[in-house]
Amino acid sequence: MSKRSFCYFDNNATTPVAAEVLEAMLPCYTEHWGNPSSAYRFGREAARRLEDARGRMAAFINAEPRELVFTSCGTESNNTAIQSALSTHPARHHVVTTAVEHSATLKYCRQLQQRGIEVTFLPVEEDGTLDLHRLERSIRPDTAVVSVMWANNETGVLFPVEEIAAICRSKSVSCHTDAVQVAGKLPMDVKGLGVDMLSLSAHKFHAPKGVGLLYVRSHSRFQPHIIGGQQERGRRGGTENVAGIVGMARAAELASAHLTEENTRVRALRDRMERGIFKAIPGAARNGAREPRLPNTANISFEGVDAEGMLMALDQAGICASGGSACTSGSVEPSHVLVAMGLRPERASGCVRFSLGRANTEAEVDCLLEVLPGIVKRLRESRPG
Amino acid sequence: MSKRSFCYFDNNATTPVAAEVLEAMLPCYTEHWGNPSSAYRFGREAARRLEDARGRMAAFINAEPRELVFTSCGTESNNTAIQSALSTHPARHHVVTTAVEHSATLKYCRQLQQRGIEVTFLPVEEDGTLDLHRLERSIRPDTAVVSVMWANNETGVLFPVEEIAAICRSKSVSCHTDAVQVAGKLPMDVKGLGVDMLSLSAHKFHAPKGVGLLYVRSHSRFQPHIIGGQQERGRRGGTENVAGIVGMARAAELASAHLTEENTRVRALRDRMERGIFKAIPGAARNGAREPRLPNTANISFEGVDAEGMLMALDQAGICASGGSACTSGSVEPSHVLVAMGLRPERASGCVRFSLGRANTEAEVDCLLEVLPGIVKRLRESRPG
Repeated sequence: MSKRSFCYFDNNATTPVAAEVLEAMLPCYTEHWGNPSSAYRFGREAARRLEDARGRMAAFINAEPRELVFTSCGTESNNTAIQSALSTHPARHHVVTTAVEHSATLKYCRQLQQRGIEVTFLPVEEDGTLDLHRLERSIRPDTAVVSVMWANNETGVLFPVEEIAAICRSKSVSCHTDAVQVAGKLPMDVKGLGVDMLSLSAHKFHAPKGVGLLYVRSHSRFQPHIIGGQQERGRRGGTENVAGIVGMARAAELASAHLTEENTRVRALRDRMERGIFKAIPGAARNGAREPRLPNTANISFEGVDAEGMLMALDQAGICASGGSACTSGSVEPSHVLVAMGLRPERASGCVRFSLGRANTEAEVDCLLEVLPGIVKRLRESRPG
Repeated sequence: MSKRSFCYFDNNATTPVAAEVLEAMLPCYTEHWGNPSSAYRFGREAARRLEDARGRMAAFINAEPRELVFTSCGTESNNTAIQSALSTHPARHHVVTTAVEHSATLKYCRQLQQRGIEVTFLPVEEDGTLDLHRLERSIRPDTAVVSVMWANNETGVLFPVEEIAAICRSKSVSCHTDAVQVAGKLPMDVKGLGVDMLSLSAHKFHAPKGVGLLYVRSHSRFQPHIIGGQQERGRRGGTENVAGIVGMARAAELASAHLTEENTRVRALRDRMERGIFKAIPGAARNGAREPRLPNTANISFEGVDAEGMLMALDQAGICASGGSACTSGSVEPSHVLVAMGLRPERASGCVRFSLGRANTEAEVDCLLEVLPGIVKRLRESRPG
């Protein structure tokens, strides 16, 4: 990996592929490139690597290997989970989700509404948390699935998925969680969590783009979304992305090995950054609850500053950060997450997400703290009026 | 790429990643790993590579860059095409396809039937060809899409897609073709072909697994199948598999550059193989029309021989071939393609597909011709009764 000439504070958007991950992937391109579905030995060697990766991924989230369905991305995993719950409960026409989900859930649910499915988009509190009583009351006899994210990609705020799963169980409703932002940042144990389905995306934890995972609890009903060959025991058609899956499994092992240390170190860096910002910049405020929150994420408003100008100035200074989800960038609308949290427009328009990761250093945080006050000052001074 | 210790005659199942393709992919993992949706320069560099690849892929099939939707595989492309045609023509509830499609179309259509969609599975002639009058008559006022494969993956038989597209146009019905087996084997020109949608899969032409393409003609109505962020101009959610897409584009360039030479050389090898088999082995017969057919594919019956035993013996001799599609392997049922062609069960059970490719040599074909007669003889002698 080449030395970086910039500070990358956008690890919730994507992460670099770890050197060890690429190393694990390369033989899948150069030597063991057979089709895992082929019956001859050369194909079976690819199948063996695939199943080895499945075992490692299962260990990563404390699942059984047969409970995993490899997909192409977190978006496919989320779409599949919700679609499967509806297809396998044909008499149920209602979905419960929240107003702050990733577009992979939110837009999919809006499209379901056009097909006649009723969707409850639960509001959140001002700090981005959920009212669980309200969630419980929203579940109806015809609810097919409750789909809630574990960690918000913009604010890092964690939903109490274990409690939500327990509520769903008590009402015999399927529970899905989008855990895309949790992988590599917090320990994951699907058995303890009690969800029926869980989505992951490889590129958020130092594996390549183009690979995802859907956990489907044993004995759950399931209907595939991508339908074709018998891959994934008939649960997802299409020749398997063997190299990507092998890379994801290696990345999962690395994440597990470094989880506690990274969690402590990255959290300390993030807190140092927040403290530094709040100390140096008047009118800066955190969006979303301080805890429970991902250890790496800080979403900060700078009063009287436009996020777009801020991000451009940061980019000029060699600092990568974002206004919200990369997946919705290009959109002129304010973040749906912050709007759902009731932020005043003038505050919502000045929000920047800093998401730290494995590679970030104290020196990088200090560099940010050095340039940020000047940028904010300059932008405030240059405002019209 | 390491030297092979075996003869690989299963290029319709998958192909090795070309060295040039891997070389083009590596910087996407090591240096330009940003999220193409990110607004800062580092993300825009990934976006630039993505759009560069889009231009190259468009040139490969004579399309406009904006007509391409990158997907995760041929299966996703086929599912998306058919689903999109139905969703965007809500008053139409009928699909026309053929009995010999890949499972990505066939099984998807069977699932549609369960949802109340009517599907006509057109039969084929004994040589695997289509009766176009029958196809024309099958189109109804409520037909949403005609989906036919360009080249059959098991027999290599080509359907006259240009004529089929013209019929569809005359009836104002959308036309989709699964061209997965054509890429890298025959020239492709979507403008000349006149189809509305066309599916490709990268790993069939020396690019990695986990990437596909759906061509959607300008001004066609479209509804995404994977719904999330604004990637692919809102046509396919999910962070783009940049490395895979860049690899596919490089593979397309290589395929274009070598197409004529490969087509001639591979065809000559295939014909040499067929002649050698028919000369040396009594009771061996080609399945499917001799022409028009892919230049690399030979599907051959060996009377009185079980395909499974044959493939095992070939594997022992270091030769990779298959009984049909890798995607349906593990299935005990005879090939749906050969059954649709009306093969007697005793002949259908002894079919082997040899699919040649860029790396095959005359020496490999001669090696096959040396061992094959002995294998067939031995298997025939060991038959019970």
